[in-house]
Amino acid sequence: MTDEPVKTLKPGALLAAMRQKNPLVQNITNFVAMNISANVMLAAGASPAMVHCPEEAGEFATIAAALTVNIGTISPDFFDGMKMAATAANAAGKPWVLDPVAHFATAYRRAAVAELLALKPTVIRGNASEIISLAGEHAMGQGVDSGDSVASAEAAARALAIRQGCVVAVTGERDFVTDGDRAVHVLGGSKMMPRVTALGCSLTCIVGAYVATVPDEPFEATVGALALFAAAGDLAGRDAFGPGSFAVRFLDFLADVTPDAVDAVARVVPA
Amino acid sequence: MTDEPVKTLKPGALLAAMRQKNPLVQNITNFVAMNISANVMLAAGASPAMVHCPEEAGEFATIAAALTVNIGTISPDFFDGMKMAATAANAAGKPWVLDPVAHFATAYRRAAVAELLALKPTVIRGNASEIISLAGEHAMGQGVDSGDSVASAEAAARALAIRQGCVVAVTGERDFVTDGDRAVHVLGGSKMMPRVTALGCSLTCIVGAYVATVPDEPFEATVGALALFAAAGDLAGRDAFGPGSFAVRFLDFLADVTPDAVDAVARVVPA
Amino acid sequence: MTDEPVKTLKPGALLAAMRQKNPLVQNITNFVAMNISANVMLAAGASPAMVHCPEEAGEFATIAAALTVNIGTISPDFFDGMKMAATAANAAGKPWVLDPVAHFATAYRRAAVAELLALKPTVIRGNASEIISLAGEHAMGQGVDSGDSVASAEAAARALAIRQGCVVAVTGERDFVTDGDRAVHVLGGSKMMPRVTALGCSLTCIVGAYVATVPDEPFEATVGALALFAAAGDLAGRDAFGPGSFAVRFLDFLADVTPDAVDAVARVVPA
Repeated sequence: MTDEPVKTLKPGALLAAMRQKNPLVQNITNFVAMNISANVMLAAGASPAMVHCPEEAGEFATIAAALTVNIGTISPDFFDGMKMAATAANAAGKPWVLDPVAHFATAYRRAAVAELLALKPTVIRGNASEIISLAGEHAMGQGVDSGDSVASAEAAARALAIRQGCVVAVTGERDFVTDGDRAVHVLGGSKMMPRVTALGCSLTCIVGAYVATVPDEPFEATVGALALFAAAGDLAGRDAFGPGSFAVRFLDFLADVTPDAVDAVARVVPA
Repeated sequence: MTDEPVKTLKPGALLAAMRQKNPLVQNITNFVAMNISANVMLAAGASPAMVHCPEEAGEFATIAAALTVNIGTISPDFFDGMKMAATAANAAGKPWVLDPVAHFATAYRRAAVAELLALKPTVIRGNASEIISLAGEHAMGQGVDSGDSVASAEAAARALAIRQGCVVAVTGERDFVTDGDRAVHVLGGSKMMPRVTALGCSLTCIVGAYVATVPDEPFEATVGALALFAAAGDLAGRDAFGPGSFAVRFLDFLADVTPDAVDAVARVVPA
Repeated sequence: MTDEPVKTLKPGALLAAMRQKNPLVQNITNFVAMNISANVMLAAGASPAMVHCPEEAGEFATIAAALTVNIGTISPDFFDGMKMAATAANAAGKPWVLDPVAHFATAYRRAAVAELLALKPTVIRGNASEIISLAGEHAMGQGVDSGDSVASAEAAARALAIRQGCVVAVTGERDFVTDGDRAVHVLGGSKMMPRVTALGCSLTCIVGAYVATVPDEPFEATVGALALFAAAGDLAGRDAFGPGSFAVRFLDFLADVTPDAVDAVARVVPA
């Protein structure tokens, strides 16, 4: 754990680099998230491609700069595509991000996420219940929403990061990111965010865009992606009347927010 | 038929109870509706989960407080998941809601809806053409939009409710709800609503949230869900410039509307 | 090439005719586009139906007035449905529109689009990279976004239109439409449009609504559909703060724009 992670991490500079690269990211995500995730990526400055079927998912993973996998509405065909894409990404040295949506809910989902973990994601992003349960502890979540606080998931996140050799991000009212060694909190956002569906799934895709930009720095990339969401969420929430207008403003601010504004609005502090 | 259903039904109180419970509802719905249905549920105060594949749909139905099934973009895999989830919901004593989208359009869809009806939905919600055709009469609908008026579907709705032993809701310019004995109209909403896709599908999910809240009172629950839509739709339509801004405001008002405002704006009258 | 295509084409009158007919259009599109495409069609005045599975796609194509096929998130089941629907549309004399999203990206996609081309679409709508590559030339595109300018695709579009005997539309910063003989540019729109996902896919569905309205005039229909998007995009972009608010305003103006406003705002000029 560094003493002053704020100064060594550059979320604003990473946003500028991501927009400059405009990375092509393959997202195998759920049906709820497909449209909003693509809109979030286009607004922020990335290039999304939703390519999932086993006939082409692996081939496409060698073209894209990064891959994201989200099990929200998993089925056998999608699962096959996920495994082929993750395997191909690994073979090609491309980073990939796992979003283990409600993986504890059913036997099928638990088995699927175990196979995906064995394929060594570069980053895992989930809510507190998902991360606690992935680490092998008992979580309170039932459906897709977390029943646990981020604070209660921090030890599990560190253990999971060390066990998997990856970066783990727990998002919620106060985000936590760790690579098992370093750890920070990312503060910002809006109380409206849990009232808009699939923003967490969309954030997973944005983590993909950032790790595509600096593939050798997945911890910094993940913090940068979360800082972008924290800043745009904070700005969007200031005048939103409800979740509908918040979602519209959030997309506007993902496009409008400058690197300097990200650094000014989002706060990255030692954990 | 009660003389004064307005006084015995409490849409505002049911909204408060639904928000208090924040019920986990499993929705097996169509690809068009997945995102907006989840946003509608989160805005209103419910907890949606889209879980459809045969490998887990039945198991998840025992966890969720209610199930909704919508055949809008049905395919064999989804159909298998629907049947397994409905069967599991019945076995677990959980209520479930059927949305028979355009079931009269093709032979495949007619056969599917016949199998689903045999699994005894607690509530059926459809447009006038769908309900007329489900009751075995000749409807004017072609695609997903109704070619018939709600008024012309009321007798069919009563017959269907009696035959199935369920609640039937016909929604449109003037909603009609019956359990075969009682019957009411729910008035409100906005002319903009048919110009936004999948609001009817989203209402089916909200009916699921209400029957999850008061599973022994499916008639009252259905009326309550329709009253919420009528109130939020009326409020959202007052200043909307077009269907885009209406949809945004509708989500805002689903979150903002109070129980008292539901009772003040939506009108539930004897049919 | 006519001398003054502007006077022989009537985008405003075609909009009025399309709204009058309110055509039922079957769309087999991708998961990202399903919701926004349906909203675009409802706002503009058409009646969308998303029906894709092999068990019913062919039967439904005989009911609908036109078909659109989009390979954005293609998989074997969807591909079977596309072929059955296109075959049935041909047999019934119904026009159909192909959107060959990123068809050059993988071997599976290349093979699929070759089979679809053999089924003789009435109109092909794509971005510059897609059309260049369909014509057999070398394109710069990688993912779903074009790496080529519309101007660089015009010769390829003409060659493709002649080879296929169909209308080809290349959309981008300056749209180009040709039937191999006639050719026009359609000007308008907004710089925001590429920042909102699936607007091109939605335009393909609107082309379907226009060819359903005047099936014997696919060139005029395609120009009319593009002119509607150009006009509504221009109007929506004038006060939009970002891609979120642009998308909302775009739907509003698709519903609000009059035939006269389409003719006044969109410019159709000889190419």
